[in-house]
Amino acid sequence: MKPDSVLYEGKAKQICRSDTPGELMMRFKDDITAFDGKKHDVLEGKGRYNAQVSSFFFEYLEGRGIETHYIRMETPTVMVVREMEMIPLEVVVRNVAAGSMVRDYPVEEGTPLDPPVIFLHYKDDSRHDPMINDEVIITLGILPPEELDILKETALAVNMHLSAYLDECGITLVDLKMEFGRSDSTIYLADEISMDSMRLWDKKTGKSLDKDLYRFDKGDVIAGYATVVGRIAPEIPGGGR
Amino acid sequence: MKPDSVLYEGKAKQICRSDTPGELMMRFKDDITAFDGKKHDVLEGKGRYNAQVSSFFFEYLEGRGIETHYIRMETPTVMVVREMEMIPLEVVVRNVAAGSMVRDYPVEEGTPLDPPVIFLHYKDDSRHDPMINDEVIITLGILPPEELDILKETALAVNMHLSAYLDECGITLVDLKMEFGRSDSTIYLADEISMDSMRLWDKKTGKSLDKDLYRFDKGDVIAGYATVVGRIAPEIPGGGR
Repeated sequence: MKPDSVLYEGKAKQICRSDTPGELMMRFKDDITAFDGKKHDVLEGKGRYNAQVSSFFFEYLEGRGIETHYIRMETPTVMVVREMEMIPLEVVVRNVAAGSMVRDYPVEEGTPLDPPVIFLHYKDDSRHDPMINDEVIITLGILPPEELDILKETALAVNMHLSAYLDECGITLVDLKMEFGRSDSTIYLADEISMDSMRLWDKKTGKSLDKDLYRFDKGDVIAGYATVVGRIAPEIPGGGR
Repeated sequence: MKPDSVLYEGKAKQICRSDTPGELMMRFKDDITAFDGKKHDVLEGKGRYNAQVSSFFFEYLEGRGIETHYIRMETPTVMVVREMEMIPLEVVVRNVAAGSMVRDYPVEEGTPLDPPVIFLHYKDDSRHDPMINDEVIITLGILPPEELDILKETALAVNMHLSAYLDECGITLVDLKMEFGRSDSTIYLADEISMDSMRLWDKKTGKSLDKDLYRFDKGDVIAGYATVVGRIAPEIPGGGR
């Protein structure tokens, strides 16, 4: 990955060219940001933990029939992924009320949501990722109805598999944000599955083990991320400290 | 309406007690506000125009089978309405892309939307009326699914009737915001149907005839409101100037 190979530089990841056609390199950075980029820091080791958890869960989900963009890890922070057309939606599934759901609607933090609820956002930093609904997605041609259905079904299936796995590790999956891509008319789970994209609470103590540690200065971010790594996959180097 | 009879003071209307059980008085004020109340003025005659257009359209819709809260006009700015439990949703139907739709999504102002699209917002000034979706409305018990269906069907029917009538008057109904209430398990169209709640463009010139005149300093607000009154109901005193 030469400097000129960067195709896209995001807040927490870089997407770089690969020598293999149809593949891209996704580098997980140590940068951590919150509140639309207003808060920004660099935390050593954060990129590695997120890359490792993402790789672990992409492999886990592939084993349960979910199509993902994951191919393999190149280094501890560089993931080789399938090149595809990204769908400009953020798909959030919530199992427990927290975060913006509590800010925006009359529901207390910690309230279980049964069934889980899906929120869709139009992914555009310059527009601050506004919430969107099914009718607008279809009317504006962002996705045809049948692909929107697949995307929502897949999001709920991913949430179900991850919730069950994390529950066994003593962790509540409060909510998670997913992104999807499309290649040859197949829809793939893309982006990352990490402590930046999931809201995770320790089942016993209720304490945050995710980016909320950073957002709201709730404690040692890297220690929280390491706890998750250690619980889900103790064999990952550096996990479980 | 004594001063102590005000039950609720909104930005553009007051709701007052009535001597008749089951009825309330809705007084249309000359206050006009925009941008979450950040812009605020008083424009003489504005309350009367909005009251008259609202009363005209409530009667028109009642004649087409839509249940509304309208009972009668008490004075040119005071409407007698049915007392009911308000549903805390703002229901927006859009026929043409404009306003926040253009700000938030990749669509140009003036693009026809076919079929019209519905947006739902949770009505709460302190939360800035956030957008909401069907799943959240049902999961949080804001409305049961069958009432949400009725509310959306009614909103689309109101939009259809008003669009057709306004089109005959040389006016495009770009979008409109509705509120609903519930009484004895019937859902009623409530609030107002006015130049504050509809976005209206002159069909020939494309010029605004609604609150956008005020929001964006596009021209003489009262003259625009009077134009609408004159076109939809020339017999209303003061209309058609």
